[in-house]
Amino acid sequence: MVKVGLLGCGTVGSGVVKLLEQNRDIIAQRAGEEIVLHKVLDRDVEKCRRLGIASAKIAADVEEILKDEEIDIVVELIGGVEPACSYVLEAISQGKHVVSANKDLIAVKGREILEAAEANRVDFYYEASVGGGIPVIYPLKQSLAANRIKEVIGILNGTTNYMLTKMSREGLNYEQVLKEAQELGYAEADPTSDVEGLDAARKIAILSSIAFNSRITLDDVYVEGITRITPTDIKYAAELGYVIKLLAIAKEDEEGQVEVRVNPAFIPADHPLAGVNDVFNAVFVKGDAVGDVMHYGRGAGQMPTASAVVGDIIEIVRNMRSGCNSRLGCTCYTEKKVLKIEDTKSRFYIRMSVVDRPGVLAGIAGIFGNNNVSIAAVVQKEGGEMAELILITHEVKEKDLRKSLQEIKELPTVKDIGNVIRLEGIDKE
Amino acid sequence: MVKVGLLGCGTVGSGVVKLLEQNRDIIAQRAGEEIVLHKVLDRDVEKCRRLGIASAKIAADVEEILKDEEIDIVVELIGGVEPACSYVLEAISQGKHVVSANKDLIAVKGREILEAAEANRVDFYYEASVGGGIPVIYPLKQSLAANRIKEVIGILNGTTNYMLTKMSREGLNYEQVLKEAQELGYAEADPTSDVEGLDAARKIAILSSIAFNSRITLDDVYVEGITRITPTDIKYAAELGYVIKLLAIAKEDEEGQVEVRVNPAFIPADHPLAGVNDVFNAVFVKGDAVGDVMHYGRGAGQMPTASAVVGDIIEIVRNMRSGCNSRLGCTCYTEKKVLKIEDTKSRFYIRMSVVDRPGVLAGIAGIFGNNNVSIAAVVQKEGGEMAELILITHEVKEKDLRKSLQEIKELPTVKDIGNVIRLEGIDKE
Ligand SMILES: NC(=O)c1ccc[n+]([C@@H]2O[C@H](COP(=O)([O-])OP(=O)(O)OC[C@H]3O[C@@H](n4cnc5c(N)ncnc54)[C@H](OP(=O)(O)O)[C@@H]3O)[C@@H](O)[C@H]2O)c1
Ligand SMILES: NC(=O)c1ccc[n+]([C@@H]2O[C@H](COP(=O)([O-])OP(=O)(O)OC[C@H]3O[C@@H](n4cnc5c(N)ncnc54)[C@H](OP(=O)(O)O)[C@@H]3O)[C@@H](O)[C@H]2O)c1
Repeated sequence: MVKVGLLGCGTVGSGVVKLLEQNRDIIAQRAGEEIVLHKVLDRDVEKCRRLGIASAKIAADVEEILKDEEIDIVVELIGGVEPACSYVLEAISQGKHVVSANKDLIAVKGREILEAAEANRVDFYYEASVGGGIPVIYPLKQSLAANRIKEVIGILNGTTNYMLTKMSREGLNYEQVLKEAQELGYAEADPTSDVEGLDAARKIAILSSIAFNSRITLDDVYVEGITRITPTDIKYAAELGYVIKLLAIAKEDEEGQVEVRVNPAFIPADHPLAGVNDVFNAVFVKGDAVGDVMHYGRGAGQMPTASAVVGDIIEIVRNMRSGCNSRLGCTCYTEKKVLKIEDTKSRFYIRMSVVDRPGVLAGIAGIFGNNNVSIAAVVQKEGGEMAELILITHEVKEKDLRKSLQEIKELPTVKDIGNVIRLEGIDKE
Repeated sequence: MVKVGLLGCGTVGSGVVKLLEQNRDIIAQRAGEEIVLHKVLDRDVEKCRRLGIASAKIAADVEEILKDEEIDIVVELIGGVEPACSYVLEAISQGKHVVSANKDLIAVKGREILEAAEANRVDFYYEASVGGGIPVIYPLKQSLAANRIKEVIGILNGTTNYMLTKMSREGLNYEQVLKEAQELGYAEADPTSDVEGLDAARKIAILSSIAFNSRITLDDVYVEGITRITPTDIKYAAELGYVIKLLAIAKEDEEGQVEVRVNPAFIPADHPLAGVNDVFNAVFVKGDAVGDVMHYGRGAGQMPTASAVVGDIIEIVRNMRSGCNSRLGCTCYTEKKVLKIEDTKSRFYIRMSVVDRPGVLAGIAGIFGNNNVSIAAVVQKEGGEMAELILITHEVKEKDLRKSLQEIKELPTVKDIGNVIRLEGIDKE
């Protein structure tokens, strides 16, 4: 019998309590041993009581779990960097295996924790930290291990995907869908971490570390959120055969340099990620042997996330039974250079308001040309005295694009640069 | 250094040779040890030579590999049940780990091989046998292990998916697309195994054994192919909001009885599987905790399949290094009853030609009613003296449907029952 100590009995924690109970029989079969909840900690004891947890199993403080010699596996579901980090490290130093769903923690302290786990020959598993219940971390570490991963593109945040789907389908604006998402409980009262792309940034930091075998932390990720996306952009995207998604993107170039960023992007309407709607998440991986692979499912929610947490527990128990814990720890064997956003290359959609008279486009095109920005398509939308100009570039250096836009902004004929959005998921020209 | 012996240097075998060479550095890093090809066998020695394999590494007969004490892992890529089965069992009895992509073999001899592997404490891995490069077998055994799997629905055969996609997009008939697929090399000269659904049946036998922890073999799978699908059915499907796919389906009911079948089916146009086109494969899994998860990618082809094979080799080497081979062998802990097709329940699309006069529908509806077949929708297409009648049923027992159709066929007003196709992927009524 393997005993689990649970830190945090909130949304996911209670899901884990329920799942261990509900599927006790098959979990024992598949793990090869019965798995029981031995002790639970939460700031709010009532949360534990409401789940029917016996008083004897409710820990008075964290040490009661971390120091309990009977506990083999600690499950950390309190969230945040501290005190979660200290708790996890102490559990590891006590020789306990740890499962966590905490992307905030792993995206900044991943290396430290995985190295501690290795030094103590225990497991640290974290499948739930990216994509909720979707198997993505272990497939990358295992089944896809023969591939040089060229690209990982994810829709990793359910809240913003719900909002963008809603904006696309109903023509609503950002404020309207945010309000609706908050009313439905899909967005938090303070939605910053979701809408500004930080949540997705943590997840792509974790995924890209695995894909490229080089530690990428939150600080390495360039981030743009969805707050500036308008119904106009969404409409033009559709007209041009694209949809707008908040993408988490990690790429490695021929020289082994990586770029990792989160930004809204146009992707072709027939790209597999384009059909990932509402709160669903997906991770799209390009490997040199396997080609394109996609994993799709619920990226959050109580039971989907608990599914991944308990899956990790089962895997640890299997390792315990074969005496091979720590067989698959940190996989960051190398250190790759992370490109600055200025040095990355993308294709861009640019929307601007210009005075509608002859020669205006020539002026703009001239500036782009001088800065090595090559234009693939131009659409002009008439609108009285002013016209809206939609440009799609070929692949250009971000630096060159920014410089041109600076210059273009100064043109007297250009009233306003409405939006600039990257294009993604298009095969190389 | 770990030494691999390769049986079969055809499409996938040569992919494995290439991949081990091309990604030698990262494979060694990820496995923790260098992996080298020690000996290769093929009926046709020229195939090995063309890949640049040194003469010293080309085996004269299979025993040279199976008896070679230096070889740790045997990769079986010759295909078919025999002699592959004997070779695999002998390798296992010699204490060698085995990787295979051979669905024909595993769908009939899976239990025997996995039990032998367990008895000899070696690994038998077979990720490539289903869905080519798509990670699906290990995610089911690992990340999703906390779930009671309710349903696995796969598009598991690239050839037929290509054909149906083509029929949908271009209105071509079965013979036309088969010819085209053969010209493009997507279908074999003898396409039986693909178009009659046998290839998909082998794969769903393998997947359902894992999902339900009960051994399902090819014989347990009910199979219908795509040869009777017409452009008319595809057109009506589209009109009603569906697409037709060849689905491999495995379900477990509340009483723990399972049904496993391959048949063409209507699925809603907004179902994630509906967007899986051309030669792509996908596996859609419904778990009680995780909800809906889908894995998508290239289900065949040299390098995608080699990706899975080499992924398995890496995993075995990791196990060797931690001394835990055989940690995850046969997972068929129980024996579940497989329902006969007559006892399964489905919704159906029925297309029939009837005489166009009053009372005809009443007669047909009466027979359905007497047999507990409840009709959800009827569309009548006028066409001169005859009319085409399209019916969609509610969920009915297959037995009841068949009995009604027998009786309906006898009606003088019914000229012909054109086609009967199941509906799938619709949430319970
Ligand atoms: N929810 C999801 O869908 C989801 C999906 C993927 C990953 N995750 C991750 O899973 C983790 C848990 O998320 P959640 O949604 O379950 O959060 P939650 O509902 O806020 O649960 C956290 C629980 O831990 C308690 N807690 C926090 N700090 C504590 C401390 N120092 N000592 C004792 N108890 C403490 C909290 O109590 P108070 O409420 O009193 O603070 C709360 O009951 C997070 O890392 C999150 O990022 C969540
Ligand atoms: N191709 C794919 O995309 C794919 C995808 C998933 C799984 N698979 C599976 O992978 C396996 C290999 O497929 P494949 O496409 O690579 O087949 P293949 O191209 O026909 O390769 C098989 C090779 O093995 C040789 N061979 C057969 N029997 C032999 C024997 N007894 N002794 C020595 N050599 C023998 C064959 O030689 P001859 O040609 O002279 O017979 C051939 O060179 C099969 O089990 C298949 O189901 C294939």
